[in-house]
Parts: sequence; C-alpha cells; structure tokens
Amino acid sequence: MKLLSFRYGGEQLFGPKVKREEAVWDVIAIQEELGGAAPFPRRLIDGVGGGMEFVEQIRKLVSMAESSDRAGEFKHSFDEIEWTAPIPRTPKNVICIGKNYADHATEMGAERPPEKLVVFTKSPLAIAADEEELPVHAGVTENYDYEGELAVIIGKGGRHIKKALAFDHIFGYSIANDLTAREVQAAHQQFFLGKSLDKSCPMGPYIVTKDEIPDPQKLSLVTKVNDEVRQNGHTGNMIFPVDELIAQVSTYVTLEPGDVILTGTPAGVGKGMKPPKFLKAGDTVKVSIEGIGTLSNTFA
Amino acid sequence: MKLLSFRYGGEQLFGPKVKREEAVWDVIAIQEELGGAAPFPRRLIDGVGGGMEFVEQIRKLVSMAESSDRAGEFKHSFDEIEWTAPIPRTPKNVICIGKNYADHATEMGAERPPEKLVVFTKSPLAIAADEEELPVHAGVTENYDYEGELAVIIGKGGRHIKKALAFDHIFGYSIANDLTAREVQAAHQQFFLGKSLDKSCPMGPYIVTKDEIPDPQKLSLVTKVNDEVRQNGHTGNMIFPVDELIAQVSTYVTLEPGDVILTGTPAGVGKGMKPPKFLKAGDTVKVSIEGIGTLSNTFA
Repeated sequence: MKLLSFRYGGEQLFGPKVKREEAVWDVIAIQEELGGAAPFPRRLIDGVGGGMEFVEQIRKLVSMAESSDRAGEFKHSFDEIEWTAPIPRTPKNVICIGKNYADHATEMGAERPPEKLVVFTKSPLAIAADEEELPVHAGVTENYDYEGELAVIIGKGGRHIKKALAFDHIFGYSIANDLTAREVQAAHQQFFLGKSLDKSCPMGPYIVTKDEIPDPQKLSLVTKVNDEVRQNGHTGNMIFPVDELIAQVSTYVTLEPGDVILTGTPAGVGKGMKPPKFLKAGDTVKVSIEGIGTLSNTFA
Repeated sequence: MKLLSFRYGGEQLFGPKVKREEAVWDVIAIQEELGGAAPFPRRLIDGVGGGMEFVEQIRKLVSMAESSDRAGEFKHSFDEIEWTAPIPRTPKNVICIGKNYADHATEMGAERPPEKLVVFTKSPLAIAADEEELPVHAGVTENYDYEGELAVIIGKGGRHIKKALAFDHIFGYSIANDLTAREVQAAHQQFFLGKSLDKSCPMGPYIVTKDEIPDPQKLSLVTKVNDEVRQNGHTGNMIFPVDELIAQVSTYVTLEPGDVILTGTPAGVGKGMKPPKFLKAGDTVKVSIEGIGTLSNTFA
C-alpha cells in the first residue's frame, strides 16, 4: 500500500493511493461515513504504531467504499490536493546514518569506512514535501548538496530491539534527500547545523508499507540532477543494513512511532565530483528508489 | 519568577513558586476560578512563546489569588506534587553546544578550543526531572559521565536572530546535566548516540525567567558528586556567550518556543580525572548555578 499525507479543504488528511488512478482514498471520510464509531487516527503518524493492523484497517475501509455506491465521493484527485511529507513532523529529530556506503565514505575523504555507526540528526523543521519548491539558502551556504537516501519509517517503538525482530518495528519505507550545507558540516565538526536548514529534508511522495518491500537491501537508488545521473547506487551496498541500524540505534535511543531513520547515501554527491558541483537555483533533483517511487524537488 | 511544571491529581500543571514557601501557585486553577474566560496555556511550553507578557499574565493571576480570601485553595505544597522537568518534552531534540569552555576542551584531549561552534543534539526522551532517580545504563555504558550546564529556554522563536536581539528570544534559564556515555560518544564520531540515552538530560528544578538574571555570563556553576566538588566553573568563561550561541545556531536552524540550548560544560568531568572516575549506582550529582538553584539526581 502506498500511503500519502495531504491537505484538502483546509484539513491535514491521509490515505492510500487509489490503484491505477492518480487519486487518493480519503479514509478518514470513509471511516466517518461508513465505518461506524470505531476510533481512527486523524494523522498518519498516529496510526503507524499499529503496524500491519493499521494497514489492514485501511484496507477494510477502502473495500467498504469500493463496494458502496458512493466510491467517487471518497476519492480526491491528485489535482485537488496539496501534498505534504507522509510524516510532516517527526516526534524527534530525523535520525540519520552517515557514511553507510563505502564508496561515499571514500569520496568524502575518509581513509576507510567507519567501523562504528555514525549517527547525527536533522531538525524536524527540515522535512518538506515531494514537488515542494526548496530554498538554496544563498548567503548561508554556497555548497548546498544532495544525498538520495532510503528512509525507514518506524512503526512500533522500542529500545534494545533485537536485529532478528527489527522488521517488526518497521512500518514502511520512503525516499529522502538529505540536503547538506557542506562547508557548514565541515567547519563545525558535528553535523547538526549543516544538516538542519529549513526544508533540507524533502521526503515522499509515499510511504510504501513494508509488505510490498520483501528486502530493503535489494533496491536500486538513482539520483539525478537536471536529468543527469549522479548517484547510481544499490541498498545492498550499505555497510550496516536496515535491521542492523535499528538494532544498534535502539541500543542507545528509544525509537517512537513515526521516527524516521535515513540510511545513508551512496557515492555521487556534488562534493565528490571533480571539480565539486553544488546546487543552484533552477536545479531539479530527483531521487528514485526501486519499488518506492521518485522524490522530485526544484530549487528556487 | 521561578516556574515549575508538575503533576497533581493526575494532571500535568505548571506555576510559579510561592515566595518564601515550599509551594507552587496553581495558575491554571486561578485562571479558571478567578480569571474569567481569557485563554491561558495548559502547559508551560505553550506559554513561553509569549515571553515577558506571559510572565506578566502569571503575575496578575497570582496577585488576584493573593487578594482574594481563597489564596490557600490555589497553592500546592511541594510535598503534594510530583515534579517534572519544566519543559518535559522539547519540540525538537535538545540543542547542545560542545567544548564551549576552553578548560573542558583541553581535558577532553583537544589541542585547542574549537574555532567554530560544535553543535549536537540529545533525544527529547532524555529529559528527566530534578530529584528523579536515573539509570546508570549498566551493560550499555561503563563510562557514564556528568556535565553540569546552563540551559537557555527559548521563548519567541525565530531564524537569523541578530546577536543584539538574542535576549528578546530568551524566556529564561534552567540547569541541566548533559549525561554522556563516553565510550559511545568516542567510538561513533558523531555524539548523538552517546548523548541520547533515556533520562540522560535531567533539567530543572525551575525555569528562572530572564528578568531575574541580568547577565547569564556572570554565574558561578558548581557540580558535586556525592558532595565532592568536581566542576567549579563560571559562565563568564564560555568561548561563545549565550547571545552569540543564539545568533549562530539560528543562522542555520529555526528556533521554536520551548527549544532548549545547553551551553556547554566547564572542566572537571569524570573523564578528565586521572584516573577517570565514572558514575555508578548510588552516586548523587548536584549541579548548582548562581541565582537559578540546584539540580540533584541520584543514580539507581
């Protein structure tokens, strides 16, 4: 199931994409009209803790609508809605893994890949939507750079999560662009400032629920700038795979429903080019991950 | 004014300390009973964005209660309440400044103090209360260490805040202990994991509003472990003073009401001792800052 969050009629809503249509099911409306008094989340983040039971609840609402004679009432065409990120605000800062692909660690000047996880955060105000126009932050950075990444959306929270049980805690997957002010990242030792500019973490368009991604380490990842391929990576090349990331991060940090872990970026960022090529107004960056879709943003 | 957040009768409340009494004014109850229909925040974090106007509103409620014949109804003795941190959950991760005292940078092995701000974050789940019993996280860290710090509570939010206007954005000050798993901090390059254990950021007991602290760079800071003085510092020795911190952080990160900036720790942490001395079950750590009070926690 592909889930999206959106604004319609002044309200923040969510729902699954309608199969073979450029439209979304308004599951909150279905619940109100056809679903009876059962409690139902108002925001996607309030449901993800329920994991696959929540997905099942959405499936039932959709089939209720389909088998009613009012299906059309409960669909909004993509033309009518304003997209937001699937989780417009994470409960804590976005959790990010640094240097998780050996080829990217090398292009960033590391002598060898890290032996231990490198984990930093981005402000939740960095989160932006697919197709949202983003600032290049001229005057604050002259070295603004892209990093296409697989985003893991945490469902059930927890701490000390065993690697063998990590997938129980995943709700689904999305795509993120971990935009980075390179000179700020480098000058301040710790990455938080250079990673936390407003709208420096576009995410989406969908969360694809985990049942549709049998193995998150078997996905190609391609980033294009103005249709030129820059990153041509594969999640199989992560140094620490997704289950290991969840196990290790949760050794120290309690994960909550709606937390997002960005799993690192493969080689091909602008800073790694000779000479380096940074983002400028007018550029469009597209990050595509197999089975999940394409995140596209233009810079103003 | 000294403001605290607390639980009473199953509710999360807040109010100012009653002068010369070990009690708190229940300003929400005063507002409901005597204050009329004016809107009033239910949580301290919902008020701090109003800055000194919010403080004035609280002052008026207290004087209403004092001049009524029902003052006693609106006070809760400290014996009756359960203290929480003044801001039990910050809107984004707690923002922390590393190595902001030259003597501490040296004891941590730096050749020279940083030329640029070092900024990392702690999970908001790290926040704990004054006098709350804290875990030592045995099995996760054997090198758990204290760092006494002045905490700045942001009132009015903003970005690109000028140094000259920084104090307009401060609501008040508190005390924090930036507890750190030293071997985790060192092994993972970026500090987030080693800084984000549950309850690793006790804060309180109060927020002292900024009108009572004429200069945040003129405060002595003393940390004791089991009554042995370990840190005997002074905020005048910060490399980057509070107004500079707000200006520099907000160059990159949008600050929001209730955000907390920990301003760094002076020399005297356990790791800097020869041999190092880390925290163990049964230890009590007290951080005292002039004009603000004492934050005390025992480890279980």
